[in-house]
Amino acid sequence: MKVVFIGAGNVATRLSLEMQRVGFQIEQIYSHTEGSAALLAEQLGCSWATQVSHLIDDADLYIFSLKDAVLESVIRSVTPNKGLWVHTAGSMPLSVFEGHIERYGVLYPLQTFSKERPVNFNNIPFFLETSLDEDADFLKNIASALSGNVSFLTSEQRSRLHLAAVFVCNFANHMFALGSKIVKEYGIDPAVLLPLIDETTAKIHSMSPQQAQTGPAVRYDENVIERHLSLLADEHLKIIYQTISQSIYKESTHE
Amino acid sequence: MKVVFIGAGNVATRLSLEMQRVGFQIEQIYSHTEGSAALLAEQLGCSWATQVSHLIDDADLYIFSLKDAVLESVIRSVTPNKGLWVHTAGSMPLSVFEGHIERYGVLYPLQTFSKERPVNFNNIPFFLETSLDEDADFLKNIASALSGNVSFLTSEQRSRLHLAAVFVCNFANHMFALGSKIVKEYGIDPAVLLPLIDETTAKIHSMSPQQAQTGPAVRYDENVIERHLSLLADEHLKIIYQTISQSIYKESTHE
Repeated sequence: MKVVFIGAGNVATRLSLEMQRVGFQIEQIYSHTEGSAALLAEQLGCSWATQVSHLIDDADLYIFSLKDAVLESVIRSVTPNKGLWVHTAGSMPLSVFEGHIERYGVLYPLQTFSKERPVNFNNIPFFLETSLDEDADFLKNIASALSGNVSFLTSEQRSRLHLAAVFVCNFANHMFALGSKIVKEYGIDPAVLLPLIDETTAKIHSMSPQQAQTGPAVRYDENVIERHLSLLADEHLKIIYQTISQSIYKESTHE
Repeated sequence: MKVVFIGAGNVATRLSLEMQRVGFQIEQIYSHTEGSAALLAEQLGCSWATQVSHLIDDADLYIFSLKDAVLESVIRSVTPNKGLWVHTAGSMPLSVFEGHIERYGVLYPLQTFSKERPVNFNNIPFFLETSLDEDADFLKNIASALSGNVSFLTSEQRSRLHLAAVFVCNFANHMFALGSKIVKEYGIDPAVLLPLIDETTAKIHSMSPQQAQTGPAVRYDENVIERHLSLLADEHLKIIYQTISQSIYKESTHE
């Protein structure tokens, strides 16, 4: 099966390398950034293009891994062909392909990817959607070659999943970043926070995050909260602290 | 060495059980809640008390593991003796003991504890402080029997560390809770988020959280942000989303 990637960013890099590893034939990488296209194509040992007009037209699968903002316009700039076209974006609906091509779908891996960091695909949940029923099995077989956790989801559900992913990944990571910043300012190595961060994550494998919630905000301990606010010189950190503490308290009293 | 615990909550439970495991003799548990005192004492096979007047006065070490709000008043209700008194609170200064007793200190384990969940103590960072220089080695030996990661820190630095811990543990966990809530509302099992959460945490062992930051907020992708806000019916979730997204953007442009 011949595969073309449109995009050479974090998702395209990790997904193409993994697909090649499990036996797919990656034929071509497209990116409007020559450096990115060439770098990924070199790792894969395939050809690359920086103009959509140079894309091969006889691949079986075209994977669009692009920023949301340009996804639709790039799709519509590619000449329609007989392959299955899919995108990998959590927050973009299936309908971005509508009216341009017959066979299309979504192949959404729920994971955070960095170009430089290999990740185990086996347990990554993949969420699929196809325009034609007859392509459902075809796409499912592709995803199942990568992961043991594959299911179908509507665009609407997927957009919620992506929103949830922003909370548990991007926002949680930002909390790690702010915590690291606070200790660094006082000459403490942020690595001391790692065992705590690891345990915070490990905990929610055996209890729900609601049950695992600890700290001054759950009981709205105003003494500690006031002391913490007085330690935060930065006004935007104060607002973050207050907003999240109030939310923790609100969610805990809901139970 | 005889040890008495004043408190029978999450920290007292895990710390006393671990101290007993590595060979310390836990003599007595005090808690004003009879059920908590009896439960922990039973696990340890030691005596318990619900009145401070029943505390034994010849222990070598008294560990106060209490809520911040009651710590000082409980300390001051206990008759002074010759033992070393320490508390385990990140945000409380050494000076809560001042004027009441001669030998005192702090034994702060930077970790999140739950009564029911055993945790590996070996790599928990312990931060110490003592009133008397001659007690520093005594307390360091105690902590070193529990963990390979022991150091001294002033009350001021410790309070910053505790503040950082609130961000990376309590606040990050709340992001896990909100993400789980969002997917549950759409009939999706929140367990699908676990591989993403695990990778988010694993990532920052090999790069800084600043470098690991991904998602719509870093590039302030207004299309995605607006779409996400429109999906959030709950006003307080909208505020959380906006506040943290702005903070991510602000921190990333600082680099």
